[in-house]
Amino acid sequence: MTDRYTQTELTRIRRIAQYANYDRPTVHAIVDAGWICQVAFAVGEQAHCIPTAHWRIGDTLYIHGSNGSRLLKALAQGASACVCIAHLDGLVLARSAFNHTMNYRSAMIYGQFRVVEDEAEKWRSFEVFMDKIEPGRRHEVRMPDDSEFAATTVLALDIEQAVAKIRQGPPEDDAADMDIPVWAGVWPIETRFGTPVADAQPEAVI
Amino acid sequence: MTDRYTQTELTRIRRIAQYANYDRPTVHAIVDAGWICQVAFAVGEQAHCIPTAHWRIGDTLYIHGSNGSRLLKALAQGASACVCIAHLDGLVLARSAFNHTMNYRSAMIYGQFRVVEDEAEKWRSFEVFMDKIEPGRRHEVRMPDDSEFAATTVLALDIEQAVAKIRQGPPEDDAADMDIPVWAGVWPIETRFGTPVADAQPEAVI
Repeated sequence: MTDRYTQTELTRIRRIAQYANYDRPTVHAIVDAGWICQVAFAVGEQAHCIPTAHWRIGDTLYIHGSNGSRLLKALAQGASACVCIAHLDGLVLARSAFNHTMNYRSAMIYGQFRVVEDEAEKWRSFEVFMDKIEPGRRHEVRMPDDSEFAATTVLALDIEQAVAKIRQGPPEDDAADMDIPVWAGVWPIETRFGTPVADAQPEAVI
Repeated sequence: MTDRYTQTELTRIRRIAQYANYDRPTVHAIVDAGWICQVAFAVGEQAHCIPTAHWRIGDTLYIHGSNGSRLLKALAQGASACVCIAHLDGLVLARSAFNHTMNYRSAMIYGQFRVVEDEAEKWRSFEVFMDKIEPGRRHEVRMPDDSEFAATTVLALDIEQAVAKIRQGPPEDDAADMDIPVWAGVWPIETRFGTPVADAQPEAVI
């Protein structure tokens, strides 16, 4: 396995190609930094875009849902999907309207999902998903019982076509605009956990 | 104009239908709270999902890009698009793996984009986009000159089919799980601006 995804017609970045990045660890880091992805697929000519939780093991991306969800049914039937994970890192304010932009890290994955039929893979995927939320938590919570396990469909996409697109840094103004007396720079956007809010405990436990 | 979008076959929420919300102000607030949307469209059977900046005037959603971008070309040709704006508000940690979930606000818009040919509408859309970034900023920066104006395509989607889906609040554990000795509750996820980073000023100005 090389450290880069091979560029294909689907993953060739046309706009501002210098922002494209095919490095496997770079793509994986962007995938892992997100809790939800956007899954696009088409039914006939109609596109759909569904946000859903995702997690990753090696080069396999996982999503899950209730048996019978529209998303999972269409994907299980082999729809040609596009999965996007995008992080907005800042607004980039330039001296001209035209040169305003955003700082971001996005990963785009093209491929087809498969239903995870193998029970060992399915169980392992649940463990890794729980570890993503909080390492070790799977040893404390009640893990899925047989009916919960059966009621959940896990879909996997073995990543072969993927690309990252990254824009960072200050604005790039035209030389002729540099004397315009307006603040220019980056407003960073930060995403973080706030103070945890504990669930009300049942009286019997208190 | 009523205060609600009419539910259609495309916007009927199947999974956990009680989270669906067709109120126009609710959908608009979710749209406006986001800087980027995800635009899904299909070319043949292949779906694409492109993150891009968006803004709104009344019931019209705007996006823009360079003339000739793949996204804009496909959408200008009338592709049946789905636009999603999703905000992740927290991880919801339950006492069973199965009842873990997330708090979120998402808006889904179905429709077809049109190229904004009317120059007054196009100019007005730029003004509103700049005001979204910072009210009044359009009076300070250099607004687009003729060539920048011509080089930018603005697409509009007049919103008719839209729905919000919102999940908030604590976990909902099974009664039988309430004695499991594990922390349960919500980890809020906060998105905010960090400290602005000013662009290096040209020496001539200093």
